Amino acid sequence: MQLVNLGMIGGGTVGSGVFHAWQKNGGLMAARLGVKLVFRKIAVKAFDEPRPYPIARNLMTTDWQDVVNDPAIHIVIELVGGTGIAKTMVLAALAQGKTVVTANKALLSAHGPELFAAAAKSGANLYYEASVCGGIPIIKSLREGFVANQFSAIYGIVNGTCNYILSRMKAEGAEFADVLADAQKHGYAETPPDLDIDGHDAQHKIGILASLAHGFWADHHAIHTEGIREISKIDMEFAGTLGYTIKLLGIAKQIAGKKPGVQISVYPTLIPNAHVLASVNGVFNACFVRGDIVGDTLFYGRGAGKDATASAVLSDVADAALDLKNGAKLRVPPFVAHANTRRIVPLDEITSQYYVRFSVVDKPGVLAKIAAIFAAAKIGISSVIQPEGHEGESVPLILMIHDAPNAAMRKALAKISRLPAVKAKPVMLRVENFS
Amino acid sequence: MQLVNLGMIGGGTVGSGVFHAWQKNGGLMAARLGVKLVFRKIAVKAFDEPRPYPIARNLMTTDWQDVVNDPAIHIVIELVGGTGIAKTMVLAALAQGKTVVTANKALLSAHGPELFAAAAKSGANLYYEASVCGGIPIIKSLREGFVANQFSAIYGIVNGTCNYILSRMKAEGAEFADVLADAQKHGYAETPPDLDIDGHDAQHKIGILASLAHGFWADHHAIHTEGIREISKIDMEFAGTLGYTIKLLGIAKQIAGKKPGVQISVYPTLIPNAHVLASVNGVFNACFVRGDIVGDTLFYGRGAGKDATASAVLSDVADAALDLKNGAKLRVPPFVAHANTRRIVPLDEITSQYYVRFSVVDKPGVLAKIAAIFAAAKIGISSVIQPEGHEGESVPLILMIHDAPNAAMRKALAKISRLPAVKAKPVMLRVENFS
Repeated sequence: MQLVNLGMIGGGTVGSGVFHAWQKNGGLMAARLGVKLVFRKIAVKAFDEPRPYPIARNLMTTDWQDVVNDPAIHIVIELVGGTGIAKTMVLAALAQGKTVVTANKALLSAHGPELFAAAAKSGANLYYEASVCGGIPIIKSLREGFVANQFSAIYGIVNGTCNYILSRMKAEGAEFADVLADAQKHGYAETPPDLDIDGHDAQHKIGILASLAHGFWADHHAIHTEGIREISKIDMEFAGTLGYTIKLLGIAKQIAGKKPGVQISVYPTLIPNAHVLASVNGVFNACFVRGDIVGDTLFYGRGAGKDATASAVLSDVADAALDLKNGAKLRVPPFVAHANTRRIVPLDEITSQYYVRFSVVDKPGVLAKIAAIFAAAKIGISSVIQPEGHEGESVPLILMIHDAPNAAMRKALAKISRLPAVKAKPVMLRVENFS
Repeated sequence: MQLVNLGMIGGGTVGSGVFHAWQKNGGLMAARLGVKLVFRKIAVKAFDEPRPYPIARNLMTTDWQDVVNDPAIHIVIELVGGTGIAKTMVLAALAQGKTVVTANKALLSAHGPELFAAAAKSGANLYYEASVCGGIPIIKSLREGFVANQFSAIYGIVNGTCNYILSRMKAEGAEFADVLADAQKHGYAETPPDLDIDGHDAQHKIGILASLAHGFWADHHAIHTEGIREISKIDMEFAGTLGYTIKLLGIAKQIAGKKPGVQISVYPTLIPNAHVLASVNGVFNACFVRGDIVGDTLFYGRGAGKDATASAVLSDVADAALDLKNGAKLRVPPFVAHANTRRIVPLDEITSQYYVRFSVVDKPGVLAKIAAIFAAAKIGISSVIQPEGHEGESVPLILMIHDAPNAAMRKALAKISRLPAVKAKPVMLRVENFS
């Protein structure tokens, strides 16, 4: 049986997970693939760094160049993460003509075109299934399973930390700060948590999915991104009363009209309780994909963790090994540019529905003033919740808003914020009914 | 750009769907694949048979041999269905060395090993993504995406007709016969409906998934199969009261123990309302896949219909075309035998939990007699629902039963059925808690 030699850079949590999965199921993979996968070298930070599974001592090196420069190694797995030294490592491996398998969403998001150009130049391949949604084969499904489709919309719960926090806020009626602190204590959120809860990680991931789906590499600077810091317990409750659940969604949607393009954005969104995405809870991820031929589909699974990520990494290794076995190294190239449009539509041009919560002084005429500003902007109100309060106090006022452009909404809210009776910055969340 | 020529046998609903999808997105596929797909011939029953999308007249022939024998055709798509002439067609195409793409689950279920042997003999490939779960890329995901996994369990809602009927029974509190009749009137169920509602179609599909997952072709005669005819409105209601939803599941589960093997079966199952499979409604299909590395995953989408099926057919065509382009015709062979065990565990040996509904005469001592029979068989009762009745009348008595082997349960129910106070054949449904 043909041998394919593997090198890996990164021997911590995920790296040891890959090694462990290979130890457990490498024989089965060989039977399925007709190729035997052999680990030759694994570059680690330190021989004795803490790791959930042991790595064979004789495979370890502390010099990543030992991996990249080993002429016997066919495939290099990069699990270092980040956009610094990881970029140097990936480019060095590609330059040697080695296939690279990476889980590094930040790197792809920041430097995708440069990496793909480097791969093309040396005829090497670059696989990245593990970069989005952990163990869910979403990259393969978009690229191969749905190759006959245009993607009218992709909605992804792609950040497990945010989904864990929002799920607990809903289930327990808890406040964001309390759940976050508890999540950090139990290792479900990083310290500092910004990369996750401010939406940056989700931005990397939806950017990768959108790029693959629409055939041009999305500049991550053009992806409108909001996190979940401003969601409060009271919003979760009012959303529930109205039949909705709040989820942080990565969104990639075809926009028709005079200036067509693709909406690519990340923001907390009210989705109907009955929608299948609303029942995706805890650290689980899911992608809802609407293809023009296949219709509505959903992919669900663990979005992170040593084992789920290992499953995705090894599926890429298997594809790369089959390509090497068949002498077809670039059978599926890492990224194909095929776009009709390369335009990311600015959020201001996008039409949404909205949930808005104002803190207002409870006295006659406040609703009339707010409604007048919306009316002047031609923005329609579809429903109002005004819980009973005591006159003179600050009370919540919740409005559900019909389809309106984000620019018009932004301007109207700025005006309303200047009303003396409006006591805090309004909370504005978008609503998605998947129609 | 390289050309790959396609022939198709079947130009009705699904065939015209494939042709339409290719007309719409063939250019996009060429850009993505670097291969141009060209339809050369399509064999139809009659030029003017009713079809939802038109097929170009000059491509049509009424003689399928024109397709199979055309030396310019590289890939033959078989959409005739059934196990008769379709088998002859597929074998003829394989014998000519052509790659075959099929949506024919009945054919694979009945003759898989013979077809794969024929493909191996002539070095041709046989793709079948569209045979299970329509547009959902479940075959590709099991075979490639999860190549590093052993599959501890697969639970599939794989028959859209049954799921449509059960969903409506639950939502409307309606009886099986009424929903079936309405479904037939509106084209959601065939006449006669036996293939779907007696579980045969689900049997074909779970057999294919189980075979792929476990590396031996499952003899469909060994798949225990029950349909949904005996589910009544009252069972749906009591299941709901207990926190469960009834779904027809195809199940493929690893069984450990002294005599290990694989459970492969189809039966209506009570699943917890909170489980993600419980919210799969209408004609939608879903597969819940538990891998030993990836953990729990779910795939959801349309399980049938001209467009979803076309998406799957064309994804197979794309894979085949890439293989042809790269001269790697068998990069992923149609089926790889790699089993440790080839044993399908008989249902009698499987341990389940159960919901049982008896119709009993409402008089003192009946529950005691039933409980005594279960106790003697060492079968534990976990809960009882006995709605208030009028003494002397026939009333329902619902028991939830702890883990017990199916054989013991079968024997105990036979004994209970012979009690004079038990007025009808007990309804016994299995319960799955996914633990």
